[in-house]
Amino acid sequence: MALTKAAILSTGDELTSGRTLDTNAGFIAERLVATGFDVVAVLVVGDYRERIAWAWNQALAQADVIISTGGLGPTADDLTNETLAEIADKPLVLDEEQAQRIRQMFAAMGRTMPENNLKQALLPEGSIVIPNALGTAPGFRLDIVRDGRVGRCFALPGVPREMKPMLEERILPLLQELRGTRDVYRSHTFQTFGISESALDELVAGAVDPALGRIAFRAAFPQISVRVTVHGPPEGVDARLSEAAERMRERVGPYCYGEGDVTMEAAVGELLTRNGATIALAESCTGGLIGHRLTDVPGASSYVLAGVVAYGNRAKMDVLGVQRSTLDRYGAVSNEVAVEMANGARRIGNATLGLATTGIAGPTGGTAEKPVGTVHIALCSAQRTFAHRYQLWGNRQWVKLLTSQIALDWVRRVLVGEDPTASAILRR
Amino acid sequence: MALTKAAILSTGDELTSGRTLDTNAGFIAERLVATGFDVVAVLVVGDYRERIAWAWNQALAQADVIISTGGLGPTADDLTNETLAEIADKPLVLDEEQAQRIRQMFAAMGRTMPENNLKQALLPEGSIVIPNALGTAPGFRLDIVRDGRVGRCFALPGVPREMKPMLEERILPLLQELRGTRDVYRSHTFQTFGISESALDELVAGAVDPALGRIAFRAAFPQISVRVTVHGPPEGVDARLSEAAERMRERVGPYCYGEGDVTMEAAVGELLTRNGATIALAESCTGGLIGHRLTDVPGASSYVLAGVVAYGNRAKMDVLGVQRSTLDRYGAVSNEVAVEMANGARRIGNATLGLATTGIAGPTGGTAEKPVGTVHIALCSAQRTFAHRYQLWGNRQWVKLLTSQIALDWVRRVLVGEDPTASAILRR
Repeated sequence: MALTKAAILSTGDELTSGRTLDTNAGFIAERLVATGFDVVAVLVVGDYRERIAWAWNQALAQADVIISTGGLGPTADDLTNETLAEIADKPLVLDEEQAQRIRQMFAAMGRTMPENNLKQALLPEGSIVIPNALGTAPGFRLDIVRDGRVGRCFALPGVPREMKPMLEERILPLLQELRGTRDVYRSHTFQTFGISESALDELVAGAVDPALGRIAFRAAFPQISVRVTVHGPPEGVDARLSEAAERMRERVGPYCYGEGDVTMEAAVGELLTRNGATIALAESCTGGLIGHRLTDVPGASSYVLAGVVAYGNRAKMDVLGVQRSTLDRYGAVSNEVAVEMANGARRIGNATLGLATTGIAGPTGGTAEKPVGTVHIALCSAQRTFAHRYQLWGNRQWVKLLTSQIALDWVRRVLVGEDPTASAILRR
Repeated sequence: MALTKAAILSTGDELTSGRTLDTNAGFIAERLVATGFDVVAVLVVGDYRERIAWAWNQALAQADVIISTGGLGPTADDLTNETLAEIADKPLVLDEEQAQRIRQMFAAMGRTMPENNLKQALLPEGSIVIPNALGTAPGFRLDIVRDGRVGRCFALPGVPREMKPMLEERILPLLQELRGTRDVYRSHTFQTFGISESALDELVAGAVDPALGRIAFRAAFPQISVRVTVHGPPEGVDARLSEAAERMRERVGPYCYGEGDVTMEAAVGELLTRNGATIALAESCTGGLIGHRLTDVPGASSYVLAGVVAYGNRAKMDVLGVQRSTLDRYGAVSNEVAVEMANGARRIGNATLGLATTGIAGPTGGTAEKPVGTVHIALCSAQRTFAHRYQLWGNRQWVKLLTSQIALDWVRRVLVGEDPTASAILRR
């Protein structure tokens, strides 16, 4: 079954000048894909009639459904209505009902409507209005026949809070019908750590028959995720997804910290909660990043009991109880100090687990023996203590991020009964 | 002088499926516009050879300069190199130097390079490498002649932290030359906080004669920046920029925390250093975010002396010395507790300044009296103590971010001799 093809248009000088980030296109794309459409292109152009016309013409040549945002406002640089009328070879006609509604909206605010606002009610002949409950500009639908094929064109305002309900409540249900198939799409995502995207690619190659499902990767470090998508009639699709997911699971298992849209910090939080465990942190080189990430998860207050950012030796000794003799003998960046920091944090927080990081994030502070990127992680519980040295790379922010990710992965592995130091492929 | 036309391409299924927000196109657009280019279109396509080819062909038909991101990875769905080779009618050739570099990057991590990684060093014949200091995929430049016109094509990786320095350090200086005019563009940026983008727009309206310079905004909260750009022959341009910047400075002064590409945390770090001051943190609702932000700045270890993440009451009492009677009487989310936290942090760290946050980040934990978004900030020195309650909005991550930004702005204002509580327009 061929997918119905869709294109997305975003119009506005604020987008092509980088002044505003286009979040509409991604939002619409996500909804279209979930509805079974294949998004062939996103086209973004500024407020010029010939560029908007180019974008519509390109979209009409490739897609059956086109969803546009922007250019519906009252000012001279809002050109979507008139450009689309030109492309469709239709006159602009005043929609009296919409004109009336716009007048009423101004009256309700106690203001007189500037005459240029009526421009928003001038729609290409044959358009069907898509009401805008939250703003003056109505959206509209217009079918344009091109090379014997009907292009379903939808014009929506660029303001996200106006656009979103119009898309979800009016357009998506209509598109379900237009697709003319019962087939649905279902996907399942695995979150991984400790494996590169290319190695992951090799690992899952052949896991799923291409006829059964499609595998896609997404690397937004520290998250590398792999998603399998299946499609078909509603009856069988869930079973097929389960089957495909199970084949993926067999391959990615050792590197997978969660399934679905879960972050490492959320996965760790869930494991801590499930085990009735709590954690206290002693952060040197990560500077608070581990605490920040863990507390981004709602409910973290029940298991993050305390954290200490101990950058200098004094804080390490005074707050965490690290021995001066340990600092003198091994240096602040050492397994020995990391272990004393972790124990100190655990004691202060009266927590099940103590986690510590100490290292050289750079760009300065490195030595021949301990170059920039040298990081020690320690994790202790009442029963066991783990510590390890890593040699990481990249700039300061990167070393911090990578250290926080490895440290959180340690917590996860300890909670599922693994030796954390044996696991990460990133170790030297 | 006509501006040179540019187009931006973004490639990746994760973009056309809405799984990843495309932030690259906006970033590149902003830089191109500041360099004097007119961005005629942004084209986003998935990982299909024919769609990528369509995007390049469309871009070549309209633009003199094309900047593409994505599709340079090692996996089978990374198609930019081969598609561009096809369009240019050139073979792919292995760049030995880049192949060697990729092998070395893997060796440095103690890993064996999967053979598919070599794909990244296969470039269209005639390409000029744009080195990637932070990742395996090299970027490259390729000139393609189309209808007697040279299209300057640039292919960059999709990972923003890899792409950005390649654009700024390598491509933009080259584009300055390619523009084929002696005129140069110079711009100056002001970073602001405590004012909305539209209010900022009104504030600077008319500050600079449009014939002299152009004003552009960029809102990527918590940063709202305004940039003034002047252009002209090299001789006079710096003086004109100074003049324009001075006029802007008069307007934005009260809201400006830094000039240039400075972050709030870097501005605060610089002020602490210049004043010989140090800081200690007591973070409850921000969970380590302030420490994380401050320690993202190289050299932060000289002024961030200690930090405590004190989520629960126990840590507030045991580590920071908050009185049980204060907690009982005012509750953990109060000015009184915030002040005791700040004093405790200052004492522990033996620092010039103590900074504390306590609040309800949500989504749960709010009450009628202290709803979600209630945040108290306290800042103390040997001489003075400040505390204030804010009513913030948004989700958990947003409340944390906004709180960290206000708190850092307090430190900045205190160090320049202002009353921090009197400044933020966000106060209730």
